[in-house]
Amino acid sequence: MKRPLEPSAEGRGRIVGITDGVFAIALTLIVLEIRVPSQEAIHSEHELLAAIGALAPRFLTYALSFLTLTIFWFGQQAQHGLIARSDRRLATLNLCFLAFIALLPFSTDLLADFLHFRTAVLVYWLNLLMLGVTLFASWHYAAKSGLLAEGVDAETTRTVYLRIVKAQILWAIGAALCFVSPLLSVGFILVAQLGYAATPSSRWIRKIIG
Amino acid sequence: MKRPLEPSAEGRGRIVGITDGVFAIALTLIVLEIRVPSQEAIHSEHELLAAIGALAPRFLTYALSFLTLTIFWFGQQAQHGLIARSDRRLATLNLCFLAFIALLPFSTDLLADFLHFRTAVLVYWLNLLMLGVTLFASWHYAAKSGLLAEGVDAETTRTVYLRIVKAQILWAIGAALCFVSPLLSVGFILVAQLGYAATPSSRWIRKIIG
Amino acid sequence: MKRPLEPSAEGRGRIVGITDGVFAIALTLIVLEIRVPSQEAIHSEHELLAAIGALAPRFLTYALSFLTLTIFWFGQQAQHGLIARSDRRLATLNLCFLAFIALLPFSTDLLADFLHFRTAVLVYWLNLLMLGVTLFASWHYAAKSGLLAEGVDAETTRTVYLRIVKAQILWAIGAALCFVSPLLSVGFILVAQLGYAATPSSRWIRKIIG
Amino acid sequence: MKRPLEPSAEGRGRIVGITDGVFAIALTLIVLEIRVPSQEAIHSEHELLAAIGALAPRFLTYALSFLTLTIFWFGQQAQHGLIARSDRRLATLNLCFLAFIALLPFSTDLLADFLHFRTAVLVYWLNLLMLGVTLFASWHYAAKSGLLAEGVDAETTRTVYLRIVKAQILWAIGAALCFVSPLLSVGFILVAQLGYAATPSSRWIRKIIG
Repeated sequence: MKRPLEPSAEGRGRIVGITDGVFAIALTLIVLEIRVPSQEAIHSEHELLAAIGALAPRFLTYALSFLTLTIFWFGQQAQHGLIARSDRRLATLNLCFLAFIALLPFSTDLLADFLHFRTAVLVYWLNLLMLGVTLFASWHYAAKSGLLAEGVDAETTRTVYLRIVKAQILWAIGAALCFVSPLLSVGFILVAQLGYAATPSSRWIRKIIG
Repeated sequence: MKRPLEPSAEGRGRIVGITDGVFAIALTLIVLEIRVPSQEAIHSEHELLAAIGALAPRFLTYALSFLTLTIFWFGQQAQHGLIARSDRRLATLNLCFLAFIALLPFSTDLLADFLHFRTAVLVYWLNLLMLGVTLFASWHYAAKSGLLAEGVDAETTRTVYLRIVKAQILWAIGAALCFVSPLLSVGFILVAQLGYAATPSSRWIRKIIG
Repeated sequence: MKRPLEPSAEGRGRIVGITDGVFAIALTLIVLEIRVPSQEAIHSEHELLAAIGALAPRFLTYALSFLTLTIFWFGQQAQHGLIARSDRRLATLNLCFLAFIALLPFSTDLLADFLHFRTAVLVYWLNLLMLGVTLFASWHYAAKSGLLAEGVDAETTRTVYLRIVKAQILWAIGAALCFVSPLLSVGFILVAQLGYAATPSSRWIRKIIG
Repeated sequence: MKRPLEPSAEGRGRIVGITDGVFAIALTLIVLEIRVPSQEAIHSEHELLAAIGALAPRFLTYALSFLTLTIFWFGQQAQHGLIARSDRRLATLNLCFLAFIALLPFSTDLLADFLHFRTAVLVYWLNLLMLGVTLFASWHYAAKSGLLAEGVDAETTRTVYLRIVKAQILWAIGAALCFVSPLLSVGFILVAQLGYAATPSSRWIRKIIG
């Protein structure tokens, strides 16, 4: 007998659909903050070049956001590749994760506009933290409720946890650095994220970033 | 022989696709109303913190919208998980549902800007009501036209109706409270929606919210 | 041996994916023109009610756009349900169709802002016409190139053509009415579209609208 | 035993999903720059016609962007139709490709606003170049890492490379022309892109554009 919203493979498929949708939009929205210089202010090649140069911080935070979205897209995918079915609570946890993904363009813009302010760095970090918390919670729930695919052993389960925790520790260190200097803090986070996105093969680095 | 737009499983798949698309966009658009404070107005950490604090009502209505979208995403999914095929009229009913989903960012912003006005609460409630009406109509049509999956019995059919009606009764009570106080009304609706989103296991609460 | 971009079922699947994406975004974007009244201008329930009432033409053109998108979503779907494989040219024709779908929010806003101007009605009609032209061309190409599914007979092929042509004739009549009165013209188009969206069972109406 | 983010067909499916999402949004966003003339400035049919005429360059760059997106959508699809599985690095390369797709609305607007400036042409060309570089890199990585589908022979692999390189050579020539005249440069690029989008059957042209 069929009941509404039972744990199912279809429910899992729909989570994947809405997740890819939100990521696609977030990836595109963060570009909207890179605004074309106004025509009135530009009268020569030189002025146009200068105006584009002035957009450099925007391109930097675009790259940073893009990296972050990439990392969490993989984070979500690493989990869902190991989950066979989804029930309503797992879906709700995933939607909470998406709610914080949808907030990333906001916290990134805030960071871009107030790069020298500790508050902006901390808000950005809080967003990263909540992404980690929701990912952790949804993995915990899936493992506990028997929604994982067959062939996912205890070690793999542990690896998924460890990756989340290690990344959060790195970002927490990065965020703490803002009490020394906000720019140093952003630089540290950026380097950490480059490390994750590049998925280096060096065994030494892999050990640190999980 | 193949005819255009016959009831089909593919038609059902496309409804799912466009539905997840609209929800993904709506989830992302409601964040756009949370605007980064202007750089000119901020000169210290303290001012930035105050400016972010002033965004609190925006974050609250974001949470409210997010909850609403979550609840209706599940509502649509609960139905479509039980529907095997879709014809043109069912698809049209589903698109009407999506039209009101697309209006949610508008009615939520209205509510956020005019939290103390009865009119804003009633417009928001009207949006919730129309979502319920279109969901009810599409379930009624699917059940009547033999588009349900095999193994969906009368009791399940009734459960789907009941969930919609019970939620609408709760929201109608919430909306009616705006004649006492608009804030009380919003609070009541928020609590009701939290109840749905959290899917509590308590049997007592489940009986009320269906 | 595999070659890039051969006619394939996967190519067809991707057209469906990008089509549903563009429609989902267009459905959501047309709502963005319904703007929440500014807080500064509103000081009483009465003023808020009046401000919302003043948005009525926006809601009307939203409904009109929504109907149009619905009709063309079904038009595209009616075709693609009968198409088994897609090659690059068919995909290009479909993207041209999507380019005019993406222009609909523009021509609808123009219509909403200049409801009494013939030019606005004609631009809107031109958009509808181009949607018909691209749909016609892609059906023609698919039929000619053997990309249709098995079991699609000559009569079905003709029905698809006829539906497109009949709708275009109705809209052309509607557009021509703008030389009598732009409002009459919009009214006529709105009624024609309601007829299509409602898919009436009356045999008499079905004969006219195909 | 299942491990997170192993090369898989599912990973490939998700790349397709997010790619179609980003393209759908980019296709729709480039239209947003075509703004409806303000109601205050228009008092007659004649003025409205003139205002719409003044939007002509916007429609032109819309067509140009649309062509570009079409070409790269096919470029990505040509590759992914030949790729059987995807691992994390291939996905990252694809996301880098999407990052430059997401930048296209920016560089196109810049071009539309500063059509007579060499800098704008070069920025636009740089965007095209980076799209080619990321496509080339991801094909190179997929071929090298054994992620291609069975039945993809050396000649097909070479054809995919050649198409990318030939297109980039044409665009580089186009970009170089901006030192003669920016408009000539844009015209050349537009013609080259029309050639790709139209997929002419003439053997002579096919040889040039690959």
